[in-house]
Amino acid sequence: MQLGLVGLGKMGFNMRERLRKAGHDVVGFDHNPERSDATSLEDMVSKLEAPRTVWVMVPSGEPTRQTVRELSDLLSEGDLVIDGGNSRFTDDKANAEHLDSKGLRYLDCGVSGGVWGLENGYGLMVGGAKEDVERALPIFDALRPEGPREQGFAHVGPAGAGHYAKMIHNGIEYGLMQAYAEGFELLEASELVEDVPATIKAWQRGTVVRSWLLDLLVNALDSDPELDDLRGYVEDSGEGRWTVEEAINHSVPAPVISAALFARFASRQDDSPAMRAVAALRNQFGGHAVHAAGPSSGSGSTQ
Amino acid sequence: MQLGLVGLGKMGFNMRERLRKAGHDVVGFDHNPERSDATSLEDMVSKLEAPRTVWVMVPSGEPTRQTVRELSDLLSEGDLVIDGGNSRFTDDKANAEHLDSKGLRYLDCGVSGGVWGLENGYGLMVGGAKEDVERALPIFDALRPEGPREQGFAHVGPAGAGHYAKMIHNGIEYGLMQAYAEGFELLEASELVEDVPATIKAWQRGTVVRSWLLDLLVNALDSDPELDDLRGYVEDSGEGRWTVEEAINHSVPAPVISAALFARFASRQDDSPAMRAVAALRNQFGGHAVHAAGPSSGSGSTQ
Amino acid sequence: MQLGLVGLGKMGFNMRERLRKAGHDVVGFDHNPERSDATSLEDMVSKLEAPRTVWVMVPSGEPTRQTVRELSDLLSEGDLVIDGGNSRFTDDKANAEHLDSKGLRYLDCGVSGGVWGLENGYGLMVGGAKEDVERALPIFDALRPEGPREQGFAHVGPAGAGHYAKMIHNGIEYGLMQAYAEGFELLEASELVEDVPATIKAWQRGTVVRSWLLDLLVNALDSDPELDDLRGYVEDSGEGRWTVEEAINHSVPAPVISAALFARFASRQDDSPAMRAVAALRNQFGGHAVHAAGPSSGSGSTQ
Amino acid sequence: MQLGLVGLGKMGFNMRERLRKAGHDVVGFDHNPERSDATSLEDMVSKLEAPRTVWVMVPSGEPTRQTVRELSDLLSEGDLVIDGGNSRFTDDKANAEHLDSKGLRYLDCGVSGGVWGLENGYGLMVGGAKEDVERALPIFDALRPEGPREQGFAHVGPAGAGHYAKMIHNGIEYGLMQAYAEGFELLEASELVEDVPATIKAWQRGTVVRSWLLDLLVNALDSDPELDDLRGYVEDSGEGRWTVEEAINHSVPAPVISAALFARFASRQDDSPAMRAVAALRNQFGGHAVHAAGPSSGSGSTQ
Repeated sequence: MQLGLVGLGKMGFNMRERLRKAGHDVVGFDHNPERSDATSLEDMVSKLEAPRTVWVMVPSGEPTRQTVRELSDLLSEGDLVIDGGNSRFTDDKANAEHLDSKGLRYLDCGVSGGVWGLENGYGLMVGGAKEDVERALPIFDALRPEGPREQGFAHVGPAGAGHYAKMIHNGIEYGLMQAYAEGFELLEASELVEDVPATIKAWQRGTVVRSWLLDLLVNALDSDPELDDLRGYVEDSGEGRWTVEEAINHSVPAPVISAALFARFASRQDDSPAMRAVAALRNQFGGHAVHAAGPSSGSGSTQ
Repeated sequence: MQLGLVGLGKMGFNMRERLRKAGHDVVGFDHNPERSDATSLEDMVSKLEAPRTVWVMVPSGEPTRQTVRELSDLLSEGDLVIDGGNSRFTDDKANAEHLDSKGLRYLDCGVSGGVWGLENGYGLMVGGAKEDVERALPIFDALRPEGPREQGFAHVGPAGAGHYAKMIHNGIEYGLMQAYAEGFELLEASELVEDVPATIKAWQRGTVVRSWLLDLLVNALDSDPELDDLRGYVEDSGEGRWTVEEAINHSVPAPVISAALFARFASRQDDSPAMRAVAALRNQFGGHAVHAAGPSSGSGSTQ
Repeated sequence: MQLGLVGLGKMGFNMRERLRKAGHDVVGFDHNPERSDATSLEDMVSKLEAPRTVWVMVPSGEPTRQTVRELSDLLSEGDLVIDGGNSRFTDDKANAEHLDSKGLRYLDCGVSGGVWGLENGYGLMVGGAKEDVERALPIFDALRPEGPREQGFAHVGPAGAGHYAKMIHNGIEYGLMQAYAEGFELLEASELVEDVPATIKAWQRGTVVRSWLLDLLVNALDSDPELDDLRGYVEDSGEGRWTVEEAINHSVPAPVISAALFARFASRQDDSPAMRAVAALRNQFGGHAVHAAGPSSGSGSTQ
Repeated sequence: MQLGLVGLGKMGFNMRERLRKAGHDVVGFDHNPERSDATSLEDMVSKLEAPRTVWVMVPSGEPTRQTVRELSDLLSEGDLVIDGGNSRFTDDKANAEHLDSKGLRYLDCGVSGGVWGLENGYGLMVGGAKEDVERALPIFDALRPEGPREQGFAHVGPAGAGHYAKMIHNGIEYGLMQAYAEGFELLEASELVEDVPATIKAWQRGTVVRSWLLDLLVNALDSDPELDDLRGYVEDSGEGRWTVEEAINHSVPAPVISAALFARFASRQDDSPAMRAVAALRNQFGGHAVHAAGPSSGSGSTQ
């Protein structure tokens, strides 16, 4: 079927390729003219036959909200917009209502798979009305992995549910990654285990901890056995924060996911104000030595 | 090759079957005569030709230590003992030294795979001397999963290293399970996601969180979609505790693994003394209502 | 000076008494006619001479927002409203702007001290304009504890800052309480320490952990040495949640405060869905026994 | 009464002074001749009249164990040894049994108060036999703070119980300090709160969080309002680790105390191996940028 695709970045570019391989007619738009099939959003829409389906794959937050607003002025009654980005689920209700007021349809779709999706397919979690999901099913089927549909695709609820499910998916991902990471550090710290990469590689088959993330860790260790080409500095892109916020909203204990989130925050601090306070307190009550701040802070000198 | 196998419980029984299917000659001993191939440990040893290899697969701690001691009196110089149970790595040094004093050889082998190992093979992490590992390689090759050897087997270091690696493996496992579990609870708590089992099933292909544990969660949800046939009561078998103790020994932060361990401890408490203290404090400073202890504790009545 | 006081509950009632003891003229209003000095909010306002100062001490959220709106219709230009409740700091900006649009002044005041404030005075953190703080200083001085003003009172920033400081204060409080609570449970669990209440009582003087909360724990243990008259069921009133949300907003790691918050959430669950998922997973991979759900769930029977 | 005191460091030196002010006859021994009253341990013992009481105040672990062994050879039947250092409670049983085999008596005493103890007195938790506690009561009374004896002193159980109680005391202390520290960092991160030191100072009276540690934080902020003269690098001296180990031994959840311990571990890492693993994983699945290791690691450059 025909699809407009807004946003041809790391994700959208690959998705266009996968869709085309499956025989779909994709008209992509991106501000980068080298990647774009259209000169403007308006141009892209003009190249699509009604009823149109447009997939939005731009950064979450204001860029997505603005794209949806612009599309709402360009599209015609009955056209369908699918937000496949990492929007917060709270944006979906507003988007759906705004589009609905103009007779337009809306689906939100959580997409997982990263740069590997082109080859492996993307896990898809969709929110919205049943008839809209069915209408876009050929697209979903082309994007999702080979194998039984229900193992890589689900219509999980009304508008917002797709992004909600993706948010929780990513929250889990934070916890999984941190669990492997703590294990890696513990193996590294041990004198007994002499070959850490071989140990982790041996977990790929048969063990309880085998997973795709473990395979990726093996890949990373293959090229950098001590992971010392990079720094332990980790960004976060929002879903982990939102997951903890939802845990708070629903009074659900989330010690693992929040610990993984906080570990990322801490990884980005050159120095921890909190630990300065603890150091100051120890110095106050026990006369314990503190480390002076300063350019030679790495020297470990005490005063 | 020929192998003595002590312990034919949930794990050992399946391992004998897998080894026999691979053409090995296994003489098993178990206190359960219906499973045992020998009437006693002595009888089992007498049925093996020197140099013998004996695999110990009994509960960790005293049962394993005692079996090793008994074997050390029955075996002959050059015989090899492999501890495949979940022993603490600190037991291995003592076992190895005791056996060495009698001219016997020792390997420790961490084994992962649970009841699925019969079919899928077992992930194996081995500690000990290179020549002993090579000697037992046919056994390891029969037990480990199909595929490249290094993806399901590793010789990770000297005696103790195999169990150390298995301990960390299980510590990671605690974290992974808790991450999925928090995600499950969050999905259950949401009003937006209407079909939680379908959502989790859709994560099996293409997504970043796909794993064998996820497949098992899907299995569990297939037969009990809300998991309400069981209670949130979770035992632990030691490796998680030891992992956190090693984190402490090596000054390695392990917030996720420890959180997963503590969640298990809490799951087994009918009532938390700590939270009684918090309730008492809130009552003291703010006159906040407390819930009285008593048989109707589930009623939520306040006083 | 003269003060209108809206809300004569556990906190407001005591505050009126403390203010009157200090010689202030308080006109209180409460829906409970037995406590109220006025028949309505309007009546209360009519009894005050302009320029008026009205202290709002009602539950946070909608009750406070509504009271502020009603007051804004009853008061006159130059009158001052002080919100002394536990409002989220985000409410203050809206309240301040709404009042400002009518020529009215606004302060927010975080108040700590609970039921002991009548006797000990209340710790006060105030947000708003300097001239408004000075105008209400006689009230603040009467409410705050004896001793140097700066040890029980601070003007900490613009509107919202008072409640922000109080929110963080309460977040800290969560962590402190949980630290004592974990220590209490650990002492209870030990066979060595034979007299737990005496141990904790002995921490009241000279030690590093001495505090007012510790004194309160001693009080509680004096009347209930094992704290077994109550259940480990702990409510939360919002500030802890907001503190963790702010930690997320500012990318500040808050492992202790969040752990304390999650412990409260867990304390209110009869059974944990997350731990049901962990139990299900262990059963799936290892055939580990699970505990069946059911009315006899406390029996510890396994299946 | 007469007392031998071994170890005149930061703690022992002050204790000798406090004991002498109270009229006791203290013969101190230290390897530092400027502080010592005796030329050797033997010399110290020779200056005491039987039945002797000797207080050991040297670093925990081997130094304390060795001092106890040496004393056991020098003292006579009926003499009493008190270990007032920060020994692990597991050392006490061995010490008590060793001394008992020579007819000597033993008490262990947890001592809290730090450098302030000279002036304020020390909180004391004692383990051992009742008659030995009574014999040393004049010493305990001189060391403990003014006020009711039971608010600064307790005989909490048999040998080991004193150090056990002190260990838990310090575990709590870790949690308390981290709670204040997180609050400090959150206040620093807020744009609303303009005067962080004044805010914290205002918590000293009337509030729920008032404590001696808070007073010390105020002291620290008085001389360094942003705490930027020091680094967020925090040592730990063992009791926090032991507390978490005991939590594990007794299956007691200790999320706050362990989080505080792990925060200290993390504070001492220049770079986190675990977070390198997380960064590597994100790069693997999503092509997310990583920060290269290297001398300019502080520059935040991405590749």
